[in-house]
Amino acid sequence: MFRATIDAYLLRDSVEILSVLVDEIRLRTSSDGISVKAVDPANVAMVTFNLDSSAFDDFEADEGEIGLDLTKISDILGVADKNDKVYMELNENSQNMSINIGSFSYTLSLLDPSTIRSEPKIPQLELPAEIILNGTDLRRAVKAAEKISDHMLLGVNDDVFYMEAEGDTDKVRLDLPRDQLIDLKPDDVRSLFSLDYLSDIVKPASKSNEVVLELGQDFPIKINFEIANGIGKVGYLLAPRIESE
Amino acid sequence: MFRATIDAYLLRDSVEILSVLVDEIRLRTSSDGISVKAVDPANVAMVTFNLDSSAFDDFEADEGEIGLDLTKISDILGVADKNDKVYMELNENSQNMSINIGSFSYTLSLLDPSTIRSEPKIPQLELPAEIILNGTDLRRAVKAAEKISDHMLLGVNDDVFYMEAEGDTDKVRLDLPRDQLIDLKPDDVRSLFSLDYLSDIVKPASKSNEVVLELGQDFPIKINFEIANGIGKVGYLLAPRIESE
Amino acid sequence: MFRATIDAYLLRDSVEILSVLVDEIRLRTSSDGISVKAVDPANVAMVTFNLDSSAFDDFEADEGEIGLDLTKISDILGVADKNDKVYMELNENSQNMSINIGSFSYTLSLLDPSTIRSEPKIPQLELPAEIILNGTDLRRAVKAAEKISDHMLLGVNDDVFYMEAEGDTDKVRLDLPRDQLIDLKPDDVRSLFSLDYLSDIVKPASKSNEVVLELGQDFPIKINFEIANGIGKVGYLLAPRIESE
Repeated sequence: MFRATIDAYLLRDSVEILSVLVDEIRLRTSSDGISVKAVDPANVAMVTFNLDSSAFDDFEADEGEIGLDLTKISDILGVADKNDKVYMELNENSQNMSINIGSFSYTLSLLDPSTIRSEPKIPQLELPAEIILNGTDLRRAVKAAEKISDHMLLGVNDDVFYMEAEGDTDKVRLDLPRDQLIDLKPDDVRSLFSLDYLSDIVKPASKSNEVVLELGQDFPIKINFEIANGIGKVGYLLAPRIESE
Repeated sequence: MFRATIDAYLLRDSVEILSVLVDEIRLRTSSDGISVKAVDPANVAMVTFNLDSSAFDDFEADEGEIGLDLTKISDILGVADKNDKVYMELNENSQNMSINIGSFSYTLSLLDPSTIRSEPKIPQLELPAEIILNGTDLRRAVKAAEKISDHMLLGVNDDVFYMEAEGDTDKVRLDLPRDQLIDLKPDDVRSLFSLDYLSDIVKPASKSNEVVLELGQDFPIKINFEIANGIGKVGYLLAPRIESE
Repeated sequence: MFRATIDAYLLRDSVEILSVLVDEIRLRTSSDGISVKAVDPANVAMVTFNLDSSAFDDFEADEGEIGLDLTKISDILGVADKNDKVYMELNENSQNMSINIGSFSYTLSLLDPSTIRSEPKIPQLELPAEIILNGTDLRRAVKAAEKISDHMLLGVNDDVFYMEAEGDTDKVRLDLPRDQLIDLKPDDVRSLFSLDYLSDIVKPASKSNEVVLELGQDFPIKINFEIANGIGKVGYLLAPRIESE
């Protein structure tokens, strides 16, 4: 059983967060809320997503798993105004979901969860450096790097968080000292990341005032932020690229 | 003889209404105003368009027929501001039309009307159901249907006007009961239409507060609305598609 | 030595003015400011550009020549907000330029000036007619002409400046009498120009309230305007096309 009502804009943000890495998801439901874990087809990046039942206007759910095509939901949400409510109800027998937005009613066929890639095991990583910054600062740095290169170095040195990209002949560097960050737990670390992934991930993150980065030396980066005033949590994990000297 | 002055925005709307179905028109002129009847190349949809002489700032015309390329007029109107006046004058001897917009003067060569498809005979249809609704409601329904399918069912059942589209696996339905419509003359009818056509037609109609639909059982649909505060009248007729069960 | 600070928007406008004709420039520096002379690859149009040292917040330069890739600078300026300052400093030993915008620092490799096309000799032309008009009027005329043809006639007749374009069948003409111009030194002249070039040149010129055109009979046109309240000067020279009767 799954029956829920939610703001259209919050559902749309949630879909965008997941669409960055995958087109189809296994949505896990429980009486506490909904959650998703997914890994991109190339096994380079993971996302974990949780939205508490309190983010919904109404919420009733059993433990379960629902297979969803994100592109279709995104299409359906196209008719919604920002302030519309979306009502969803699972029809277990017919394996579809009813979705109502205003006077519109959709019947969306579900995917068989067993045909969707299994949930990844999220590795337990202890990453020594932590940087908390505004999402727009992160996005500007990534956009600047894209003009120069297809990968980007993120690091901490003394009390400065830096992002650096190097092309064949040119270089760009952004230094954000502690006083331009929200918080910093420094450690001498640096890792290189693919801008293909980073620029996609940074789009939803850029809406957040507080993005938490966890960095290690040539280790994956964790990018965490909250949505819906903390009722929802998003975590990306992106593998590093090997630096060729 | 044909000489007329008209608001640029009204001429632009008129061109858009006709361009939905055809690129070239036979413009019929008389002392009462202008009118066009046209059918699309595939014979699936027709448009009738009338604009009374009172919609013009100045208007003088004999009975006549002028062959016009709508794309060219649309290009010319690109230089006009919303509040500009457009002055047009037929030069019968040289078979062209002078068009003045602000300090710009155009000389537009005319098409020989005999090279343009003849005016269609508009069939006399008695359609039992009539639905009057806001143009934006109609457009939202068509946009929702396009995400799911390439055709769309329009029907009336009891006191509810409904629009439904069904894809291979998914379905969308919009129910508008009488109290969400401007007016309804109910009758148990339904017809299926191609979204290719419907979505084009609905664009100009969506600007109107009152769009009148006339529906029958597996019959063409009439879509009528007014422009320029009722001084102009637009009627589309769209043939139904066969429902394959 | 070259070290300068300038408003991002002014640098962006300068890059746009030059990019219309060339991708790479030899930037000439002196204690008075910067200047560029360039000719397009097809030898049809030239640009001269001067920006006085007083247009900069800080400016220190020796006589010199710097080879720049305009596309790269334009990319870099993508991160700047309208009110950002751009700090540039030449590193003579490493043949690159440091560019700082906010917290961003770029290292831009320079081009060897000897690999860039030489500065053109600007011909001394005495053109009898001079028209001073608003840049937006010029741009509207060029846009109207583009809909009809790929070349455009500019001329003066009595006290009227006119622009005319003729397609296979249609014609557009804009007459601007003296009272719709800022100033006019009349002379009976006309020349034909390629709209390919004219429409590019007119884009930056359209931002200026006063564009000075100098015209002769089948001679090149000079298009001059100022930027930064007169601290910068821009001059385009565009060769005429032969009129085929």
